[in-house]
Amino acid sequence: MRIKILGSAAGGAFPQWNCGCSNCSRLRQGTLRGKPRSQAQVAVSNNGSSWYLLNASPDLRTQIEATPELHPQAAIRETAIAGIVLLSGDVDAVLGLLLLREFQPLNVYATASIRRILQDNCLFNVLQRMPQQVRWNDIRPGIRFELSSPDGVTAEIVCEAIALSGNYPVYVKRDDRMQLAEDEAVLGLMVASAGGKRLLYVPSLPRLDATLVAAMEESDLLLIDGTFWADDELARTRGRGPSAREIGHLPIAGADGTLQTLARVKRPRKIYIHVNNTNLILDEDSPEYRQVREAGWEVAEDGWEFQL
Amino acid sequence: MRIKILGSAAGGAFPQWNCGCSNCSRLRQGTLRGKPRSQAQVAVSNNGSSWYLLNASPDLRTQIEATPELHPQAAIRETAIAGIVLLSGDVDAVLGLLLLREFQPLNVYATASIRRILQDNCLFNVLQRMPQQVRWNDIRPGIRFELSSPDGVTAEIVCEAIALSGNYPVYVKRDDRMQLAEDEAVLGLMVASAGGKRLLYVPSLPRLDATLVAAMEESDLLLIDGTFWADDELARTRGRGPSAREIGHLPIAGADGTLQTLARVKRPRKIYIHVNNTNLILDEDSPEYRQVREAGWEVAEDGWEFQL
Repeated sequence: MRIKILGSAAGGAFPQWNCGCSNCSRLRQGTLRGKPRSQAQVAVSNNGSSWYLLNASPDLRTQIEATPELHPQAAIRETAIAGIVLLSGDVDAVLGLLLLREFQPLNVYATASIRRILQDNCLFNVLQRMPQQVRWNDIRPGIRFELSSPDGVTAEIVCEAIALSGNYPVYVKRDDRMQLAEDEAVLGLMVASAGGKRLLYVPSLPRLDATLVAAMEESDLLLIDGTFWADDELARTRGRGPSAREIGHLPIAGADGTLQTLARVKRPRKIYIHVNNTNLILDEDSPEYRQVREAGWEVAEDGWEFQL
Repeated sequence: MRIKILGSAAGGAFPQWNCGCSNCSRLRQGTLRGKPRSQAQVAVSNNGSSWYLLNASPDLRTQIEATPELHPQAAIRETAIAGIVLLSGDVDAVLGLLLLREFQPLNVYATASIRRILQDNCLFNVLQRMPQQVRWNDIRPGIRFELSSPDGVTAEIVCEAIALSGNYPVYVKRDDRMQLAEDEAVLGLMVASAGGKRLLYVPSLPRLDATLVAAMEESDLLLIDGTFWADDELARTRGRGPSAREIGHLPIAGADGTLQTLARVKRPRKIYIHVNNTNLILDEDSPEYRQVREAGWEVAEDGWEFQL
């Protein structure tokens, strides 16, 4: 199974359009040792010709263009993208769906709750320009499912969603949120190759529990929420703002941050992804970057590829 | 007044993610004499420090990043974007608003009908993270209005919307569409500098009428719908699809195409923008490109700038 990182930043990307923090301004000036990053986007394939997207980022158009494997190969209208698995309803996980309009059949995998949020939103009607353009596949945490193309060809990739204790996006009205299943809001995803190798993708990690740590210990590659270095990072950078935990992200640093709590997970290659523009680990000269690297973690970059 | 073209292609951009037409595939192979283009986006400024966007394209994030004038200059959170004028509710005219979330005050100018479409859509709640984040300014065709920043500083730019006989986007439910004012769906925009020079921006031109031609004859710079070369271009390229006119775009070619009907408009510099990936004028070696250039038109490219 091939795994491509098309984007590795959190929502807003790096640099962020309206941010003049030290990271963003030094990156623009060319004085930061570090890389620009588009918003988190992963693609997987077992055969190199049919690809499945994990989430659909707002940067998907340029991410596809930067990835020759995803370009049309044969017909006039064609795509190597066979399906999309959605792990939350957040704007930075779903907006890319709207960029995949243009009369293209798509297989979308999501919980019934996420599907309902999107189907209730008329903007997503742009994906219904022809009958059966989008086939929705309802998934449930803990129940395995196999990816396949819109015409039913198996990808030989088996997935299993893991419920995380996250919240539905704030754009969903409060009353509507109350109607939705609690365990369908934010997911991690185990992705197993035909050979039984496992990627665990958790771009938003609101809390750690035993199930999730067990899944990590069974995986070969971890792509984990690296949004914030510190819990108070937003307030510290711009004078105000919610804590990392308040908006559904365990920070990296601190006694119960992921760097310490996941030190005992030894088996997989461990990579931080979904890194916010304010995160000090984006500066490769920073002590924070060094600390993460010395603990055996890597910091994902756009364009990286793995083979499992 | 400075006018910057941040994007010059129609919806889907050039190349388009799922298109393997001659233009797109030759561009990807590097064998086309022509330029890649992001989705149509224009920005205007009278002082070079406060900028106003005409529409908000899905490519806005990378377009801002490619334009140093729009980067944060002073504060930690800051932007040179003071306001946005919306000319339709089409996905490729409004999706960029969702990329301007992140707690930034914005002044948005739109007809009451377009405002209602967006305010009724919960996805746009992401722009309401703090009180008064977006100030909506209702505009009416034929009534002049002056652009200003969210804190009320005038841009010294006067605009006037021109009603075009276009339709509301298909994503808006039919019943809802019936409730909206007919003349508020699709607009052209006259933008006048402090010195009285005039840009006329019409990225979607469903039909020509006397008012519009008169406005053209009074303008100094025309940025006009160059979506399709031929009325049957989509069907010809991919075997099926609506005509250019059916989806609200007068073609360039033909007896009542814009090349012939606007030949009599002599005063302004004339530029085609919002060019679809299938349009033959994107190939600078094509007879169609030559024909357009010999008739005195130019074909907009990302990054162009004008001074009026």
